[in-house]
Amino acid sequence: MKNILQRITDSFNSQGLMSTLSAQIVSIDDGEVQIELPFSTKLSQQHGYLHAGAITSIADSACGYAALTKVSAKHEVVTAEFKINFMRPAIGERFLAIGRVVNSGKLLTVCTGEVQAYSGTDYKVIAIIQATIVNVRI
Amino acid sequence: MKNILQRITDSFNSQGLMSTLSAQIVSIDDGEVQIELPFSTKLSQQHGYLHAGAITSIADSACGYAALTKVSAKHEVVTAEFKINFMRPAIGERFLAIGRVVNSGKLLTVCTGEVQAYSGTDYKVIAIIQATIVNVRI
Amino acid sequence: MKNILQRITDSFNSQGLMSTLSAQIVSIDDGEVQIELPFSTKLSQQHGYLHAGAITSIADSACGYAALTKVSAKHEVVTAEFKINFMRPAIGERFLAIGRVVNSGKLLTVCTGEVQAYSGTDYKVIAIIQATIVNVRI
Amino acid sequence: MKNILQRITDSFNSQGLMSTLSAQIVSIDDGEVQIELPFSTKLSQQHGYLHAGAITSIADSACGYAALTKVSAKHEVVTAEFKINFMRPAIGERFLAIGRVVNSGKLLTVCTGEVQAYSGTDYKVIAIIQATIVNVRI
Repeated sequence: MKNILQRITDSFNSQGLMSTLSAQIVSIDDGEVQIELPFSTKLSQQHGYLHAGAITSIADSACGYAALTKVSAKHEVVTAEFKINFMRPAIGERFLAIGRVVNSGKLLTVCTGEVQAYSGTDYKVIAIIQATIVNVRI
Repeated sequence: MKNILQRITDSFNSQGLMSTLSAQIVSIDDGEVQIELPFSTKLSQQHGYLHAGAITSIADSACGYAALTKVSAKHEVVTAEFKINFMRPAIGERFLAIGRVVNSGKLLTVCTGEVQAYSGTDYKVIAIIQATIVNVRI
Repeated sequence: MKNILQRITDSFNSQGLMSTLSAQIVSIDDGEVQIELPFSTKLSQQHGYLHAGAITSIADSACGYAALTKVSAKHEVVTAEFKINFMRPAIGERFLAIGRVVNSGKLLTVCTGEVQAYSGTDYKVIAIIQATIVNVRI
Repeated sequence: MKNILQRITDSFNSQGLMSTLSAQIVSIDDGEVQIELPFSTKLSQQHGYLHAGAITSIADSACGYAALTKVSAKHEVVTAEFKINFMRPAIGERFLAIGRVVNSGKLLTVCTGEVQAYSGTDYKVIAIIQATIVNVRI
């Protein structure tokens, strides 16, 4: 896991968008990655809640990095597609995206994930995602 | 259309995320909305291309506002879900998201859309989206 | 639960396709429904495995009936859309689709589900689904 | 195209499910395949309309065979995933699924499609699909 921790951290830190959003990786496990995003009015939609685009950005990244924990050092991963359902208004102080590998094949990795909205220590699941990620030989 | 132009412009301008991304609405027609995003390293993924989260943010917004052109002044719209395929690397100077209404029902609007990556006046379609939007009584 | 059991059973029995496929409801709980399908060459794809259309038919129905356990007697449900990933070849003697409600709102119910392929008592998850179901006033 | 016509016809004819549904391929072009399904009460859902599973079966097959027109004789195709929106009640005498290739890559083919419900020569689009298909070396 040591190499993959470094690899994911380096990759995440080189993503301009994650820095622009102020997102942070908070957990990396085999097959599961968590990314946190504090709320900011810079990331709002028209009602002042977190924009679906920001929710999706961390959900997609959490799935992609979860998939990366499953491939060899000779591969990288690219998101082929995902589908996301928004189930509640994205109201909270901070948001946690959790991406999990459901199936890891030679060519494709399938992940599911959720985004939790926190008020203090309470949270509600506001979105769920299902993603297909391609393993690409470097 | 006059009222809907104003309504969409006001809504778009109140979205913190669109301003943070430097996205702009460039076209509003009945059932079709276009949003443009200039490339910036602030929006990159780990290889320096546009991040899937930024692509998705403008694609989702273009679909949502296309749906808004179809509802009465007594309704607003909320994205229930979407699915997006990323077909090529997001390499370009600027990106254009086009959202189009395919079916407009009492409760739900179904949209499709695409994101085009421009180098000069040439473009390639880099992503396609299919979205379900709920009409909500204000 | 008594009324909903009867309601789901009646609805299922009136579906010509479920009878044509020889699918059966095997479990109905609050927020979760399971449908079983024995393999038959009548349901095959070109390699002799279960066709994706058959897998999808039971996955969709399991999600729809799971959603139905959450609505009042004055509502029925209609599938607005779903997304399904096929993760392994559909090889097995019988297949079990499990649909579960993740979020139940006034207008929409969001479900996830999986399809398991059985060889004896062993199974592999061959597909996962994420569905959006509309509550419609009867 | 001659070989691919034969290849698709042979494959389709070996699918037990397509025969059980009474579906037929009615058109094969480079990047586009059409499949027709006459209505039958054997394929109904609880209100007597065509079941979403039958709609999906022909939509998925049309996309898969459209993808097959784009790969070499050394490859076959497998559906990785799709997403389908049901926009209207599936009421009609016959149904036509059209699958079209949007992007054809080395590894993945992305297709979109629609299902039309016919009453006489009039039709309504009742469903749209967006699918990801994997090219597999035989």
